[in-house]
Amino acid sequence: MVDIKVGIIMGSQSDWPTMKEAADILDELGVPYEARIVSAHRTPDRLWEYGKTAVERGLQVIIAGAGGAAHLPGMMASKTRVPVIGVPVQTKALSGVDSLYSILQMPRGFPVATMAIGGAGAKNAGLMAAQMLAMHDADLAQRLDDWRAALSASIPQVPSND
Amino acid sequence: MVDIKVGIIMGSQSDWPTMKEAADILDELGVPYEARIVSAHRTPDRLWEYGKTAVERGLQVIIAGAGGAAHLPGMMASKTRVPVIGVPVQTKALSGVDSLYSILQMPRGFPVATMAIGGAGAKNAGLMAAQMLAMHDADLAQRLDDWRAALSASIPQVPSND
Amino acid sequence: MVDIKVGIIMGSQSDWPTMKEAADILDELGVPYEARIVSAHRTPDRLWEYGKTAVERGLQVIIAGAGGAAHLPGMMASKTRVPVIGVPVQTKALSGVDSLYSILQMPRGFPVATMAIGGAGAKNAGLMAAQMLAMHDADLAQRLDDWRAALSASIPQVPSND
Amino acid sequence: MVDIKVGIIMGSQSDWPTMKEAADILDELGVPYEARIVSAHRTPDRLWEYGKTAVERGLQVIIAGAGGAAHLPGMMASKTRVPVIGVPVQTKALSGVDSLYSILQMPRGFPVATMAIGGAGAKNAGLMAAQMLAMHDADLAQRLDDWRAALSASIPQVPSND
Amino acid sequence: MVDIKVGIIMGSQSDWPTMKEAADILDELGVPYEARIVSAHRTPDRLWEYGKTAVERGLQVIIAGAGGAAHLPGMMASKTRVPVIGVPVQTKALSGVDSLYSILQMPRGFPVATMAIGGAGAKNAGLMAAQMLAMHDADLAQRLDDWRAALSASIPQVPSND
Amino acid sequence: MVDIKVGIIMGSQSDWPTMKEAADILDELGVPYEARIVSAHRTPDRLWEYGKTAVERGLQVIIAGAGGAAHLPGMMASKTRVPVIGVPVQTKALSGVDSLYSILQMPRGFPVATMAIGGAGAKNAGLMAAQMLAMHDADLAQRLDDWRAALSASIPQVPSND
Amino acid sequence: MVDIKVGIIMGSQSDWPTMKEAADILDELGVPYEARIVSAHRTPDRLWEYGKTAVERGLQVIIAGAGGAAHLPGMMASKTRVPVIGVPVQTKALSGVDSLYSILQMPRGFPVATMAIGGAGAKNAGLMAAQMLAMHDADLAQRLDDWRAALSASIPQVPSND
Amino acid sequence: MVDIKVGIIMGSQSDWPTMKEAADILDELGVPYEARIVSAHRTPDRLWEYGKTAVERGLQVIIAGAGGAAHLPGMMASKTRVPVIGVPVQTKALSGVDSLYSILQMPRGFPVATMAIGGAGAKNAGLMAAQMLAMHDADLAQRLDDWRAALSASIPQVPSND
Repeated sequence: MVDIKVGIIMGSQSDWPTMKEAADILDELGVPYEARIVSAHRTPDRLWEYGKTAVERGLQVIIAGAGGAAHLPGMMASKTRVPVIGVPVQTKALSGVDSLYSILQMPRGFPVATMAIGGAGAKNAGLMAAQMLAMHDADLAQRLDDWRAALSASIPQVPSND
Repeated sequence: MVDIKVGIIMGSQSDWPTMKEAADILDELGVPYEARIVSAHRTPDRLWEYGKTAVERGLQVIIAGAGGAAHLPGMMASKTRVPVIGVPVQTKALSGVDSLYSILQMPRGFPVATMAIGGAGAKNAGLMAAQMLAMHDADLAQRLDDWRAALSASIPQVPSND
Repeated sequence: MVDIKVGIIMGSQSDWPTMKEAADILDELGVPYEARIVSAHRTPDRLWEYGKTAVERGLQVIIAGAGGAAHLPGMMASKTRVPVIGVPVQTKALSGVDSLYSILQMPRGFPVATMAIGGAGAKNAGLMAAQMLAMHDADLAQRLDDWRAALSASIPQVPSND
Repeated sequence: MVDIKVGIIMGSQSDWPTMKEAADILDELGVPYEARIVSAHRTPDRLWEYGKTAVERGLQVIIAGAGGAAHLPGMMASKTRVPVIGVPVQTKALSGVDSLYSILQMPRGFPVATMAIGGAGAKNAGLMAAQMLAMHDADLAQRLDDWRAALSASIPQVPSND
Repeated sequence: MVDIKVGIIMGSQSDWPTMKEAADILDELGVPYEARIVSAHRTPDRLWEYGKTAVERGLQVIIAGAGGAAHLPGMMASKTRVPVIGVPVQTKALSGVDSLYSILQMPRGFPVATMAIGGAGAKNAGLMAAQMLAMHDADLAQRLDDWRAALSASIPQVPSND
Repeated sequence: MVDIKVGIIMGSQSDWPTMKEAADILDELGVPYEARIVSAHRTPDRLWEYGKTAVERGLQVIIAGAGGAAHLPGMMASKTRVPVIGVPVQTKALSGVDSLYSILQMPRGFPVATMAIGGAGAKNAGLMAAQMLAMHDADLAQRLDDWRAALSASIPQVPSND
Repeated sequence: MVDIKVGIIMGSQSDWPTMKEAADILDELGVPYEARIVSAHRTPDRLWEYGKTAVERGLQVIIAGAGGAAHLPGMMASKTRVPVIGVPVQTKALSGVDSLYSILQMPRGFPVATMAIGGAGAKNAGLMAAQMLAMHDADLAQRLDDWRAALSASIPQVPSND
Repeated sequence: MVDIKVGIIMGSQSDWPTMKEAADILDELGVPYEARIVSAHRTPDRLWEYGKTAVERGLQVIIAGAGGAAHLPGMMASKTRVPVIGVPVQTKALSGVDSLYSILQMPRGFPVATMAIGGAGAKNAGLMAAQMLAMHDADLAQRLDDWRAALSASIPQVPSND
């Protein structure tokens, strides 16, 4: 049985199309994870439980995505010392600037590692989680290095009109 | 012994100079209240306890002020059906727009009655609490009407150069 | 005959698709309301009349939605001590930030309980109205508690790809 | 006795240091005016009266300054067809962007001629009022032309280090 | 032959769909106008000529619409003391906030009467022009009063689901 | 063989639809250029090489377009004294304001000549490059003057409804 | 000799008053670090060297602070897979929003773990670094837990007027 | 007699403390320049004259600084094909974002090479002008290379507490 080291949590089913980019890159890099809906406002006790058991369950990174008054990443950071990576989901009226400020502007004591708004941020959350784990996992480090090298090698010299 | 019907909570001692305006107007209107520091991130269990016991303790309104990634009002709204009034405290880098978005942009299900940024918002939070209570308190309604009439009467016709 | 305790007012017919979310949740919770178009600029005397008679007509909460230079909620708050909940309707050029600032930034004396921009704000306005009424209506309080519990119970543990 | 053709109104005594720039330029150009405090929220009936009597009193332009949820200019534009010039007063948290949006973003039917935020806007409001009146006042037109010519002539060719 | 008292100018053909709202309301109110393309950057000499001859040609109001770095209204205000009404055209990347700031934030000496962003602003520019002209045109004043009364009368009491 | 004097570089193939406007105007003006994909993050060594060899390769202007955390123009400006013109590509969540700030707000020592967001900025980047080259190329100066004259001449006097 | 596991880098001496908060909390938690000035624009080769040797030198986290067009964190993330934590330094004109967007909005492939603007962000960067290291350092984990517990315990129940 | 190749122009004496940074770096690099006040609104004919004679007077670069509705750089770009570098001067209410948008968002045809807001932008405008001139001035190129090398060499490795 694989050890789950990364928890991907999100405030709502509607965040999943964004957050799936985090899951996909973890799949690609061979990092086991779980994906859960943990709503700060609708299921606060689930958030509490998730946070309080994170260390003992062996989680090493938590990726939390949410939109609007996005309290999930910051409240999770309050409940556990496991590093929390926050993904601001794009919103309709304010384009995710509301999500961003709600996640980013944490007070002294409770950092959230905030990523770019939207899908790019979700994918980068997966990569950041992998980078953290790679510090003590030489195989994963090699896979990350290979992935980065392949990304660089894929860039053509000249733009194409097609 | 007076019944406390309004709870004024804030995320930090540093919010008190702002939130005191809420307390002062409640004093002026003769509405008993309590003032407490309840940090969403530093004392999450205190927040939980406060929210879960609010109804049974007889609180009828909660005024919650916070700055930055201001999670206190929204998390309190998640824990109790007592109406929560939110006050965005002005911040250094983003002038309280971060506080505002974190408090205002709540998802369907958990409203926070958001006030203006800073001291005006705090004073208005106290007035809004009084207006809510006045619906079932004819004496308070009269005091509010008097206070409003006095405010109107205090406005001079002509601006003064002094 | 039922007593109307909540007035839903809006600046224009075009606000109704947004404000209908407030009406729908009040229907769902069994709270009687009326819906009216009261334009601050086009029908200022209607606004005056609505505000001046609100207390005597027995209204206990007013929900006011408007967009752009949204003066309806604040002017209503000037005319009555009945609590006014404001809903910033999303706009074309400024996404509702203009509506938000016009509603939120009220001066000391005249609070408007501002909700999120758009439909989420309208639904939450209905819920906030119900929460206010529930302080003196045990049956409504129970229905609210049930509605909130059902909302929490509806959240799945795991996101779905469907 | 001079006919007052310009009314300078403002929401609060605290707006006077800004709005005085409008008064000063009208003095300089020899345009008679009156200055009044008319608070949209604290003295709504004064606003009503002022608007309803503006035409019969012979006012030809109204300059209205206000800050925050600045409803005075737009509500005045609703009550009279006398042209209303709006001056967004700078505010503490939002630098007058709240004032600006509340004044500028009027719906079809009720224009407010909005000026720059703060003192420059107030002075320009006075000038705009004079420009309107000058269309039917050849003497004032000449004084305006002279004022503008003098302004242009005052600009040195080379910046000074003093 | 009718006297043209209002000039509607715009920076580009692409502004016409917006600015046509100004023309349409002037048609509706029976105010003769001309519509011209005057690009501040592409036809600066045309701008110069238009501004310098405005008074002698008998123009009493100029409505100027432009988008982006919208210099047309302000430069026109520099060249003539005829009142200039500015309309910020909505833009693709910045939604017209660039147009707004370029038109609104004029220095002391050269006011531009700025309207709301987009079509509402254009229609209101036409109305503001009519309001200015109505100060010395009793027939137009009556038509304006009628138009305003009809607008108010057209507002239904109750929102419609259709 | 023609000397390439302008390098058009961009962070990604997805920037090409925007940046092609720079290429097209250079084609129209007969200015030889090269177009290359140089990603600051994915191909940093390519950026290094491009910057370090720019002078010796005879490049006289570099046009660099990028979106989001747009580091390409500024890093190129760090590596060469060849003038760098920056084009902020419009982005999904923040409309290119992120691109703009990342390109514009360079510290003392390393200017980037920033253009408008999006396609207009790209076309203007091509024109600015041509204007720089025209200072020492009389034929190009003439072609530029002709192009500008033709642009001015193409503006009709009256807007068209077609 | 202690192993340096955290590198604190900044774009300029002027960032040090902000970034020192990261250093101070690492001192308090007993985490060895180095502090270096590495300017993306003024010392790009130093940046290159620092990034390329980070893994072999045993760095496990890099904290990078910068202001304005803040390219240091993102360029460092391009050069090494060691996790990079970014701190947006507050700026004069744009309050650090420029720094924030330049650091946060990284493209897919190169995450930067972005913290709040200013000193709070710097202190949290130190804490986040410690949280990452604590996953494989039980002693540090204990010190972190103690620090967090002490922080919570330090919060008084009632705000003080002193 | 030295040939003046760079014109530094500004909208007002009050811009000189900012724009002096451009002059100072040109002095340091030995580039002759002239500094003039050319107000787009107060001295439009001076602007016209300056633009129309720029080529024949041998100007090779124009640096234009202005604040608020900053029309000077863009109008100058309309009047001459000499490259115009724009410097947005910081403003009181809007921190120079109004200046920035008014300068940056030029339509196709008339580029302005926009620099950072404030003093850094002014200094960089001087450097950009020098970089343009250096393409055909080997001595200046050398001085620029030396200046840049000295800047890089001046950066200490370790931040200082003094």
